[in-house]
Amino acid sequence: MATYPRAVTRLIEAFRKLPGVGPKSAQRYAVHVLRASMDDARELADAILEVKTSIKPCKRCGNYTDTDLCSVCADPRRDPRSLCVVSYVRDLMAIERAGEFRGQYHVLGGVLSPADGIGPEDLTVGALIERVRDEHVTEVILATSPSVEGDATALYLARLLGAVPELEVTRLASGLPAGADLDYADQTTIAAALSGRRRLE
Amino acid sequence: MATYPRAVTRLIEAFRKLPGVGPKSAQRYAVHVLRASMDDARELADAILEVKTSIKPCKRCGNYTDTDLCSVCADPRRDPRSLCVVSYVRDLMAIERAGEFRGQYHVLGGVLSPADGIGPEDLTVGALIERVRDEHVTEVILATSPSVEGDATALYLARLLGAVPELEVTRLASGLPAGADLDYADQTTIAAALSGRRRLE
Repeated sequence: MATYPRAVTRLIEAFRKLPGVGPKSAQRYAVHVLRASMDDARELADAILEVKTSIKPCKRCGNYTDTDLCSVCADPRRDPRSLCVVSYVRDLMAIERAGEFRGQYHVLGGVLSPADGIGPEDLTVGALIERVRDEHVTEVILATSPSVEGDATALYLARLLGAVPELEVTRLASGLPAGADLDYADQTTIAAALSGRRRLE
Repeated sequence: MATYPRAVTRLIEAFRKLPGVGPKSAQRYAVHVLRASMDDARELADAILEVKTSIKPCKRCGNYTDTDLCSVCADPRRDPRSLCVVSYVRDLMAIERAGEFRGQYHVLGGVLSPADGIGPEDLTVGALIERVRDEHVTEVILATSPSVEGDATALYLARLLGAVPELEVTRLASGLPAGADLDYADQTTIAAALSGRRRLE
């Protein structure tokens, strides 16, 4: 049985390490690279290497940056007293895209997950507590995902931060997504929307 | 609004050029590379470049190869008189995985598609006709996909090859896939299975 030449198999295997990429997709990506221009292939290879050499976590909040402080931490117009706690940088970017939040961030690096052996010491919880105490933070918005683990992480942090005097600790609202069809919403979302209902002014 | 640092955006854009990769997947891939080891990232970059420098089409059949002739063409046990015509190398690999075919291949490089402006001159049709005449081919198996364009390509080639004396031209059987549930099969597949029915011996 003939198979791909070794170099092609090597590339398919390298693509398979990307998240959610199965054998079919990895093969399609490899064939695409084979058929792409040398410039496009080199651009992808160079971009991979550049990201590894130039990008590091912001030493203050954990966001990606190519300098010491990320663009949010370095922006004097962003209010450091309002701190939004997210699990991952991608969540930070999602909140940025909404364009509503003018405070700063803290990236935990994950969620608490006893099943996977991930405890507070595996996240940046210690650094968060330090920042809250040292940077005169007045509100912490817990913006972990509304999942079992995200909720548990938020609850854990809320208890920990409850000891800090005059600090407001809030959680992103859970409920129906904008434009949703009530008929198609799942029970948990509807329950969250009900329990979080607000008076119309 | 804060966004990813330039190097991360560059990598996301490079990943987006892969087939079927949208903004979400490209972002996940880029973040994976960011979190991967330097060795894994370098392996992917190197594999991309190696494939571009070492792999070329087999000068005889169009299969991928890192030498002049691909592993099928170079294998003296493969019967050159039986020629299986496929659209793409991935189709050749699919037939190889079935482990039944002991002849050789010809890769067209696509299908006829007047809507996309792809005519016979854009495929390796001329080289196929030459091979059939020069290499004492006795059977051509048209193994383009059973789609509108694959069928049209097969029909076109069958007419062209009909002029070659003593050449048998066949088409892969269309019908119910192995293990299929008749109840779930689409009308076209059932119609093909009916019209291609065979007497049980």
